[in-house]
Amino acid sequence: MSSSEGEAQLPNRSSEIRKDPVFGRWVVLSPARSRRPSDFKSKSANPNSNPNPSSCPFCIGRENECAPEIFRVPPLVSDWKIRVIENLYPALRRDVNPPDTGSDHAVGPCQVTGFGFHDVVIETPYHAVTMRDLEPEAVGEVLLVYVERVQQLKALGSVKYVQVFKNHGAAAGASMTHSHSQIVGIPVIPPSVTARLSCMKEIFDLTEKCSVCDLQSDQNLMINGSTHFFAMAPFAASYAFEIWIVPREHSTYFHELDCAKAMDLGGLLKLMLQKLAKQLNDPPFNFVIHTAPFDLSPSCVPYSHWFLQIVPHLGTTAGFELGTGCYINPVFPEDAAKVLREVDCKIGSKF
Amino acid sequence: MSSSEGEAQLPNRSSEIRKDPVFGRWVVLSPARSRRPSDFKSKSANPNSNPNPSSCPFCIGRENECAPEIFRVPPLVSDWKIRVIENLYPALRRDVNPPDTGSDHAVGPCQVTGFGFHDVVIETPYHAVTMRDLEPEAVGEVLLVYVERVQQLKALGSVKYVQVFKNHGAAAGASMTHSHSQIVGIPVIPPSVTARLSCMKEIFDLTEKCSVCDLQSDQNLMINGSTHFFAMAPFAASYAFEIWIVPREHSTYFHELDCAKAMDLGGLLKLMLQKLAKQLNDPPFNFVIHTAPFDLSPSCVPYSHWFLQIVPHLGTTAGFELGTGCYINPVFPEDAAKVLREVDCKIGSKF
Repeated sequence: MSSSEGEAQLPNRSSEIRKDPVFGRWVVLSPARSRRPSDFKSKSANPNSNPNPSSCPFCIGRENECAPEIFRVPPLVSDWKIRVIENLYPALRRDVNPPDTGSDHAVGPCQVTGFGFHDVVIETPYHAVTMRDLEPEAVGEVLLVYVERVQQLKALGSVKYVQVFKNHGAAAGASMTHSHSQIVGIPVIPPSVTARLSCMKEIFDLTEKCSVCDLQSDQNLMINGSTHFFAMAPFAASYAFEIWIVPREHSTYFHELDCAKAMDLGGLLKLMLQKLAKQLNDPPFNFVIHTAPFDLSPSCVPYSHWFLQIVPHLGTTAGFELGTGCYINPVFPEDAAKVLREVDCKIGSKF
Repeated sequence: MSSSEGEAQLPNRSSEIRKDPVFGRWVVLSPARSRRPSDFKSKSANPNSNPNPSSCPFCIGRENECAPEIFRVPPLVSDWKIRVIENLYPALRRDVNPPDTGSDHAVGPCQVTGFGFHDVVIETPYHAVTMRDLEPEAVGEVLLVYVERVQQLKALGSVKYVQVFKNHGAAAGASMTHSHSQIVGIPVIPPSVTARLSCMKEIFDLTEKCSVCDLQSDQNLMINGSTHFFAMAPFAASYAFEIWIVPREHSTYFHELDCAKAMDLGGLLKLMLQKLAKQLNDPPFNFVIHTAPFDLSPSCVPYSHWFLQIVPHLGTTAGFELGTGCYINPVFPEDAAKVLREVDCKIGSKF
């Protein structure tokens, strides 16, 4: 690469092992052999290219080829903006009996019925549009659709946790190229949620601080901010260019997000997706919303704080990660934050 | 597929959520849309094909192109069978000071120097030979090399845990095609090890049983056995066709494996690698050895039991897994066990 491209070198750093204050995980930060931010660009083909969009059942006008619809926005109209439908191939089934309460506290091997909900949110009627192409308000509307569906699942009483997530690109697990996200309601509390809450409890018991509220203190890790949220590279990021978007005010449940905050978050989420796409060559990615289980005890509220995690797929999970649960990340989060802060996108807001 | 190929259908099953008695993880077993074992064959190219083996520094005669050697087997000879060398691009560095003892008990964000050891075991001098092609005794010798290197790292006193693992195929993280494994000594106890020990402690406290000893009780999950080991599909397998190879007798530390048991394990490991390759079209895979930290308290010995886990890479880890730590496995372990039991390989031993 010629220096005329003006791309900065990453600073020279020595390996470091860091512990994350939210999940309690160790990560190995190991400087990459190559030192330019561009060395981390995705080699995948554009994940949204679809050779045959005319056969996509998520496109407007083909609603009858999908599994049943749960609701659409706006309601009842044929020119909808967002649809929530059942997953045609659900991992869990809504038509079996939910397991007994308390089964997730079982000690030893345990099995329960595969009860649960697995829904798909079609984020746009148009095949060629990705989430980052939507207007900030339209991203906000998708977030409000998540909120509405999580509230519906909560009202049923049989679901303990809802995982909202988006897979973008085949390498990140998306089997459909039309822009969509997924919502899974499960009848047990998943292992990562238990581990996160117990790590945050340990810190709160010692410091009386919520470790997610406390994330705002390190300016070197900040990428961008909005009125109600900040986007940052986490101190012990497991993945290169991992981003967390966090409510500034302590907030336990994602599903309590109001309209104004959703619109605000829509802009910041769009900006982060644009920056990742521009900096890393439209990489496959996942985003996930980490929130609290519905039946959280009131004593846990002060240290439970929801946030959204974005993980571009730039590397491979291999034997070391499988054995230890400890990831090797070649990009120091403060370097990732600096690179992403400096990516120039039109709607960029300064932190 | 014509029925003349004689391939059995997998039984019709309904989704189930299972909790693992060793890691304490939940998994969603969700029957695949397709129902034949062959539907899970790897689509990857043969991971061991190397367009230019003449440039491989792991091949015999090119030792001077590698990072420093730690030892070879047999010692001092030029026609070696196995070499242990430093990793040319180590994730951790042996030339910095180890962190203070006790840093892994830190609460909240924490960072320590990237001290550690990252070694490579070249399992054969010949490029075209994979681990499953080796004679059972030669696989046993590789295992004894792991044992020797782990004992050396233990003797240093600065390493808390050693992760032995093998990545086979680029999609499983192997950057070199020449058959090799890796040994990483780290100065903190990794998150998965802590979680595993605490899950096993909880079960032991309640039942006075080691949950790994207890795995032998379910014949439906057994694949094959040898004098000292059994190979099985775990009850709550996170991955399709995941295999565990477990010492029959309670055994806390992998590095206490003796010569006779290593030779016995060599045969069973070879058999499992042959069966996976034959059944699943030589898939990329990882294997990892789960053992105990060196400074384990004597009270933990009764419930700490090492084993070897083999995970073929057949699917993608996506947003649901990232958010929940809960995997979706399309193949019920009892079906995987039956399929693998019935794969015909020459050295096959009956359980």
